Amino acid sequence: MAVPLLQIALDNTSFSDAVRTTRLVYEEIDVIEVGTILCCAEGMSAVRNFKALYPDKIILADIKIADAGNILSRLAFDSGADWTTVICCADIATVKSALREARPRGCDVQIELTGAWTLEQAEQWREAGIKQVVYHRSRDAQAAGQAWGEKDLELIRRLADMGFEITLTGGLVPEDLPLFKGIPIKVFIAGRAIRDAEDPVAAAREFKRVIAQYWG
Amino acid sequence: MAVPLLQIALDNTSFSDAVRTTRLVYEEIDVIEVGTILCCAEGMSAVRNFKALYPDKIILADIKIADAGNILSRLAFDSGADWTTVICCADIATVKSALREARPRGCDVQIELTGAWTLEQAEQWREAGIKQVVYHRSRDAQAAGQAWGEKDLELIRRLADMGFEITLTGGLVPEDLPLFKGIPIKVFIAGRAIRDAEDPVAAAREFKRVIAQYWG
Repeated sequence: MAVPLLQIALDNTSFSDAVRTTRLVYEEIDVIEVGTILCCAEGMSAVRNFKALYPDKIILADIKIADAGNILSRLAFDSGADWTTVICCADIATVKSALREARPRGCDVQIELTGAWTLEQAEQWREAGIKQVVYHRSRDAQAAGQAWGEKDLELIRRLADMGFEITLTGGLVPEDLPLFKGIPIKVFIAGRAIRDAEDPVAAAREFKRVIAQYWG
Repeated sequence: MAVPLLQIALDNTSFSDAVRTTRLVYEEIDVIEVGTILCCAEGMSAVRNFKALYPDKIILADIKIADAGNILSRLAFDSGADWTTVICCADIATVKSALREARPRGCDVQIELTGAWTLEQAEQWREAGIKQVVYHRSRDAQAAGQAWGEKDLELIRRLADMGFEITLTGGLVPEDLPLFKGIPIKVFIAGRAIRDAEDPVAAAREFKRVIAQYWG
């Protein structure tokens, strides 16, 4: 089982605010996520700037494409993104048009499982050639008090059995990680747990330590 | 039955490109939509600039919020948007958190019906206090050759019967409008039909003429 990657989610509302975190932790992390909030606030200049700053990192533009898959994915990839996201409720035509832009560039498209989706849709994504899905405990669901539960684990195992590479996100802290032991997770996302830590480098290293302990 | 408004969808990839259209047609239109593509390309500066240029128009930031409803809607409203959008597959907690930001500001939140959604969700939106929905023939579905059909009309009537104010979008041309006669449409969106017209002002006026003919 491959060792999962560590991704930092930058959901800041300005590039300057986001870069204050990455300048400290970039050596510890594998994937830099230009979050939906940051893309929305700053546009693709944030993606261009992060690729320019950290050309060796995987840059993910989390734009949650719902339509116009070709135009939006091209916008992300041409700005320097290696990966981008399509929202789970998008028409399958949108998924396919984003994949068509990704492939010749050696880039990739993830399906963002935020909100309502079905295993029938997952089957369609797989048939369309999607490899990566992002399993998401929603921020608003977290705020409403929903914890990681058996239902999450069951769905995550189901998606792994279907062959998807899984990114896990949603208020993760290092203590959550052992929950997913034995499941081939591709990426763990940390956001506020690193960004808001008193010592962000130590917080990132603690994620890496727990990942190595359970998947190394 | 109120006369439907006319909205221009600006799905350009730069502000300067978008403003080339609005400088010509702003007198003919009621709602300026800073489209998802433009928001993604330029960030909220596009919203700020359009509100500064056209303070008397309704400015819509079509950011299709999927999560973090409070942060993203606040970002849009604080940038000058009067309306913003939440994607149909979002958790109901996300819908509610966006509405909570909208109300004290006299702003509004639309549910963007792009991709998969159900009438059970529509019932939840209504209970949460949502008034506006955007019925969407997807761009990629259009490209795949799907025309407006009886199924669209049935769903649109159903949503109107539930009390929703409906915005219609998806490659509309003036000849499509009579299809929706007798349904209380709040807003018709025109994008490429105006932007790409040889004479955008004449194209906008033709929309207004047909709207007045069937709903005036």
